[in-house]
Amino acid sequence: MSQQEFKNELEEKCAGAEEIVLSYLPEPGGPAALVYEAAGYSLQSGGKRLRPLLMLETCRLFGGDETYVYPFMAALEMIHTYSLIHDDLPAMDDDALRRGKPTNHVVYGEANAILAGDGLLNLAFETASMGALVKGGVKGTDFSRSCDVAGADILPDEGSYDPDMQKRAVKALYILGHKAGIRGMIAGQVADIQAEEQNTETDMDTLLFIHRHKTGALLEAAFTIGGLMGGADPEQLKKLERIGTLLGVAFQIRDDILDVTGDQEELGKPIGSDEKNNKSTYVSLKGLTEADQEVGRLSKEAAGLLDSLPGDHEFLTQLFAYLTERRK
Amino acid sequence: MSQQEFKNELEEKCAGAEEIVLSYLPEPGGPAALVYEAAGYSLQSGGKRLRPLLMLETCRLFGGDETYVYPFMAALEMIHTYSLIHDDLPAMDDDALRRGKPTNHVVYGEANAILAGDGLLNLAFETASMGALVKGGVKGTDFSRSCDVAGADILPDEGSYDPDMQKRAVKALYILGHKAGIRGMIAGQVADIQAEEQNTETDMDTLLFIHRHKTGALLEAAFTIGGLMGGADPEQLKKLERIGTLLGVAFQIRDDILDVTGDQEELGKPIGSDEKNNKSTYVSLKGLTEADQEVGRLSKEAAGLLDSLPGDHEFLTQLFAYLTERRK
Repeated sequence: MSQQEFKNELEEKCAGAEEIVLSYLPEPGGPAALVYEAAGYSLQSGGKRLRPLLMLETCRLFGGDETYVYPFMAALEMIHTYSLIHDDLPAMDDDALRRGKPTNHVVYGEANAILAGDGLLNLAFETASMGALVKGGVKGTDFSRSCDVAGADILPDEGSYDPDMQKRAVKALYILGHKAGIRGMIAGQVADIQAEEQNTETDMDTLLFIHRHKTGALLEAAFTIGGLMGGADPEQLKKLERIGTLLGVAFQIRDDILDVTGDQEELGKPIGSDEKNNKSTYVSLKGLTEADQEVGRLSKEAAGLLDSLPGDHEFLTQLFAYLTERRK
Repeated sequence: MSQQEFKNELEEKCAGAEEIVLSYLPEPGGPAALVYEAAGYSLQSGGKRLRPLLMLETCRLFGGDETYVYPFMAALEMIHTYSLIHDDLPAMDDDALRRGKPTNHVVYGEANAILAGDGLLNLAFETASMGALVKGGVKGTDFSRSCDVAGADILPDEGSYDPDMQKRAVKALYILGHKAGIRGMIAGQVADIQAEEQNTETDMDTLLFIHRHKTGALLEAAFTIGGLMGGADPEQLKKLERIGTLLGVAFQIRDDILDVTGDQEELGKPIGSDEKNNKSTYVSLKGLTEADQEVGRLSKEAAGLLDSLPGDHEFLTQLFAYLTERRK
């Protein structure tokens, strides 16, 4: 596949993943319509839909029925989006722009942005648990009709779900909560804040802990949930989890490198901001050459693991390279 | 049961519910130990554990194996607690004290309080989804050991869960997300903020929407999840959901009444704060007499519905009266 062919395919697949994700967003309405609007604003404001795309492509490696994975794709992207809304808050990173648009709290105010984030996190689990009740879950417009759930009309009939797939879906739910939670992404966010507050050089172990958790954890969720629902066995799931870790850390070290060497215009953010903020990075601790070598080593391990899995790897192999070799 | 006997029993049962809830809290550790500490600080700072208690007692009405409901009790209390942490934030109600102790952001800073809330919400779903994988879930200290979930050692064996109970648990998970989410509690929080921002008199429909969602929704979750796991049929679940709504609204109108008539010392907060904040309440819209009558009407309907359910109602009947007739 040529570079251009890959880019076209990536664009097409991202659009497909985005369509699936957005189909689970409920229609706004009622006295609290603002929270739907605020949540929708951030969920719909671009992004590569990388996590849901990786989940879907991983599921496809194993050839399972991909419908099962759709609600989990939406849930993972909702979690990613809520984390960005909360990260941008004045009490956190205090960012006014994201992907060239005003951040959620700039548009809706701080209180509503906190609640929009909370709402998306909740909606993620609501969507995913519907995905463990009904094959493919229930699309947003269909289940926004009422707050009543006790009625048998909303809770679907017993027996409508293949029992084996339902067990997998419950495991996927657990993985989602675990990877997003205080042993996953949130652990990375907390350690990151603490490292910044301490204002001394961060040691390499802590830096890698932050990268693995803040960025790696949701990628681990993407790969393992995709694999689990597609039919991966425990050995393969371990490999998939490791791929998520490797790519997450490689992606972040590449970020550290680009902060020093990148083209400000291409990157869309000021160069050298880490140094200005006195932030320890892989580059500040080890230097550019070693950072670059480390990205190469991590990418190579990830590619090797991918090669040992079944299915057609061509697109994912190029996607891995694209993510770790990117220039922006 | 005399008033004193009831109070003793209530105290004992609350302590029992608290013990169950706290047993699901993970041990702090690692570079992100602060988030465990911050989450634990709020989860452990008192409160009546009303929601988990109501869930457990409702399950007992139907005589099911109550072990199944324990992780959901913990999850519901975690959700209640996260909502208090976020409600207290400077951007929201800006409260420095809760239950006589400094609020989370006063102790840990705003960024960590936001993350502690996010962490508890996540942990709620993690705990509950473990409760759908393993009977009774997995207690905190046991599953804090690792961030790896792909390994078969953490994801329990297939077949270890009664399939019928597992279906119920997945439904319970969905109810939890739904009642806590943007069609449940969060809808109430958003409508409440909007009503305050508008600075004009709130109409009765909006006021009842806020009460039902902000307070009622988690009570509806308590009753319906307790009933569902205990073995209630769809007709009974509808009644239980209605009981939650009625008690939630009655509880809030009682709050409005106490804000006018209460004893400041007994209540632990300033009297007349609603009027000072120019906040519309049931009392400001309808007057004290009608407010009192409405609480009576709602309580009576809830008690009637309870009477139509199986099991021994004595404790719950007294608890309903205690909640709606309280003086603080």
